[in-house]
Amino acid sequence: MKTVIGVDLGGTNIVSAVVDQKGKVLGKDKRKTMAPLGPVGVMNRIADSIHAASQASGLPWASHIGVGIGSPGPLNPKKGLIIYTPNLNWKNVRIVDYLRKKLAKKVVLENDANLAALGESWIGAGRNEKVVLCLTLGTGVGGGLILGGKIYEGAWGVSNHIGHIVVDPRGPRAPYGNSGILEQYCSATGIVRMATEAGLKPPAGEPMEAYSFQKMAEAGNQKALGVYAKAGQMLGVGLTTAIHLLNPGIIIFSGGVAGAGDLLMKPMMKELKTRCFASHLRGLKFKMAKLGDNMGVVGAARLAWQTFLKG
Amino acid sequence: MKTVIGVDLGGTNIVSAVVDQKGKVLGKDKRKTMAPLGPVGVMNRIADSIHAASQASGLPWASHIGVGIGSPGPLNPKKGLIIYTPNLNWKNVRIVDYLRKKLAKKVVLENDANLAALGESWIGAGRNEKVVLCLTLGTGVGGGLILGGKIYEGAWGVSNHIGHIVVDPRGPRAPYGNSGILEQYCSATGIVRMATEAGLKPPAGEPMEAYSFQKMAEAGNQKALGVYAKAGQMLGVGLTTAIHLLNPGIIIFSGGVAGAGDLLMKPMMKELKTRCFASHLRGLKFKMAKLGDNMGVVGAARLAWQTFLKG
Repeated sequence: MKTVIGVDLGGTNIVSAVVDQKGKVLGKDKRKTMAPLGPVGVMNRIADSIHAASQASGLPWASHIGVGIGSPGPLNPKKGLIIYTPNLNWKNVRIVDYLRKKLAKKVVLENDANLAALGESWIGAGRNEKVVLCLTLGTGVGGGLILGGKIYEGAWGVSNHIGHIVVDPRGPRAPYGNSGILEQYCSATGIVRMATEAGLKPPAGEPMEAYSFQKMAEAGNQKALGVYAKAGQMLGVGLTTAIHLLNPGIIIFSGGVAGAGDLLMKPMMKELKTRCFASHLRGLKFKMAKLGDNMGVVGAARLAWQTFLKG
Repeated sequence: MKTVIGVDLGGTNIVSAVVDQKGKVLGKDKRKTMAPLGPVGVMNRIADSIHAASQASGLPWASHIGVGIGSPGPLNPKKGLIIYTPNLNWKNVRIVDYLRKKLAKKVVLENDANLAALGESWIGAGRNEKVVLCLTLGTGVGGGLILGGKIYEGAWGVSNHIGHIVVDPRGPRAPYGNSGILEQYCSATGIVRMATEAGLKPPAGEPMEAYSFQKMAEAGNQKALGVYAKAGQMLGVGLTTAIHLLNPGIIIFSGGVAGAGDLLMKPMMKELKTRCFASHLRGLKFKMAKLGDNMGVVGAARLAWQTFLKG
């Protein structure tokens, strides 16, 4: 039996999973990233996690034909290089070289948002769809475009930055010079910013987080409802653009902010119905991601299969 | 020797060309469309034009393995159906069926903006590029995305409507419900609208056209310069979005409004440098289309080669 190992490297946790050719998870390990250990220390923890997942699967080490790793970007997949990760504060870490030597396995690296999209397209909400657009509405807004079951890379692999669609040219300034981008409205950070600007505070004892304002909106707080209406409206503006450009067959949402459900989706759909060509909107599906915590490792495994099966 | 025939169906002219496998035009015909003749009359003129191009090539009819036709959209390439063309006022015309029977040749249909992009990517400004984004800044704004030498179709073939990117959610209302789209700023129609709003009139004897305002701007008229600055700025906003989503390797401009050159391109580049990730902008090429009047027929011929060579 042949398998691959998918790894999801996050700021908080490392998750590794042994995955078969149909996407079934046969063994899994989850442990704290421990970012203060620095790149070498964390990469050694990744190797330990991979070995633990292998042991949990009960399969021999030789059955794993390769490893796929998902990391926050920006990164250079071809060079196996993590250029920068704000949440780990890594700069120019050659993770593929390091782990290939350490594990004596082939290793491939990709942006975590692309891998989440790949996982959902493989065995999740986007199965059997030709053009799958995924959005992760989390701390930021990330995305991935899957064409015919493969990650759309663009000319040099820095696509698909859907969080950086300009939705209002006079909107708030982003750190890198742009302004009024989708991420500033539909991310957890954006929700907190808009709530603060609206004079909202979480109830005593609740943290300054998007979820606190979501609960206020669900309880009927008008200002909190207004914040989610604005976020949904801007999501509709940004998706109008993506839909007219890309003609996706399905749009899949994941991430904590997407958990607001209709608070976000109703104003989004209203905006889409006003703005989109019927020819693009008719037949377009909107779904929530299905794979939950496994999205990243399953996507990383899928990339490993695609990369190493015929190599 | 084997050839194909490319046809560009426009509101004013029908152009047909016999094209070899390297993109060389071996025979050409151009004649008035004569839209008042209606669909059957015009389709018969297309057939006549194809025969005339064949004769001009000096090649036997049997040497042509198929015909590619470019038409303004919306259309359904798979069904060979022109759904609607405002400039001809056609509705639901099955042009592929008609011409296949009339000519006893295989026929393929595609959106003219996609074919212009395909032609430029094949033997024009986009040669050897992996991801080519083309914009035609004409009466409207059309576009095409070419990936690995093939038209990006999207899930059901209604991509790539780049003119319908939202660049300002509070901008002027478009006829179909959207507002503030790229086309309303960077098309000839948009230039005339903004010039009129700025209180500009063409000099006596000059027509109410974008080119008249371009000449005023070139002569130093401040209001006309402002119109082109705004058009260029909005082009920069829209392209920021397209670049972040698609990571193109080259952007190619064609159409009358693109003839304004630096009047448009300087404010566009300023906006791009402010807004785009350096990772996406560095190495990205900007070029003017090279094929001129042959862009459409050469693109149509390329699609015929791709469709019929192995079929």
